[in-house]
Amino acid sequence: MTPIELEDYLLEHIPLCAAMEISVVAISEESVTLSAPLAPNINHRNTVFGGSASALAILSAWSLLHTRLRSTGLNARLVIQRNTMSYDRPITGAFTAHSYIAEPSAWSAFIRTLARKGRARIEVCSTLEYEGQSVGQFEGAFVSYSPSA
Amino acid sequence: MTPIELEDYLLEHIPLCAAMEISVVAISEESVTLSAPLAPNINHRNTVFGGSASALAILSAWSLLHTRLRSTGLNARLVIQRNTMSYDRPITGAFTAHSYIAEPSAWSAFIRTLARKGRARIEVCSTLEYEGQSVGQFEGAFVSYSPSA
Repeated sequence: MTPIELEDYLLEHIPLCAAMEISVVAISEESVTLSAPLAPNINHRNTVFGGSASALAILSAWSLLHTRLRSTGLNARLVIQRNTMSYDRPITGAFTAHSYIAEPSAWSAFIRTLARKGRARIEVCSTLEYEGQSVGQFEGAFVSYSPSA
Repeated sequence: MTPIELEDYLLEHIPLCAAMEISVVAISEESVTLSAPLAPNINHRNTVFGGSASALAILSAWSLLHTRLRSTGLNARLVIQRNTMSYDRPITGAFTAHSYIAEPSAWSAFIRTLARKGRARIEVCSTLEYEGQSVGQFEGAFVSYSPSA
């Protein structure tokens, strides 16, 4: 999946992505980086609204699992189960969310369990950055399941 | 502050509130209830996008602190520091977020500390509901500070 394909998918299926003016910066096997400008995500203090920061982090984590699952050929659905989010500094401009698997070795166990039991759980992290500095941290647990499970 | 006043404030200052079509259902000393329809908050599975669920919960918690702080007459700013969020069931229609102070007795300590030290921290919870059932739970820590602190 290319950045343009993922971006088109997000913008077409999730209206909030269009409202936030999200763009897909990069996709690799280890990470997905999304970006959003300040203007549509601003709050009453002229910084990024926490809900926007949180939404971009969730999307980057979901996108990493989605693109990696697609490349395995498994037909699986993804649901976010819970997350923690820390907002470490105010963000006053365009910002990015850079996702990665918390424990890289967990991926193979996740895929094995999903193939065998039709359901598996994995933790994904995402770092919010602004002007090259980390400004927030997301950790989320996602459950994936086969539609027939 | 009336529901209409709060709604106007949110819609005017936070563009994402307008994109999510948020409305203010009720304000009391103990709680603020916000609501949002499915359509602008939908995802690729025709359920509410986790980022929208999280944003509504954050806003309901922030709104409770904002309205209570205003009624004390203290000139204080509010920043979200961190939160946890659990997504317990898929939401397939209009949903609400109902906020409350985690530990009601913490409010007076919060106000005392804010007045004395110019900075204080408080935990706020919010329950997401759909068709009268709890479908998610938010817990957030907010810091309030005097602009001069």
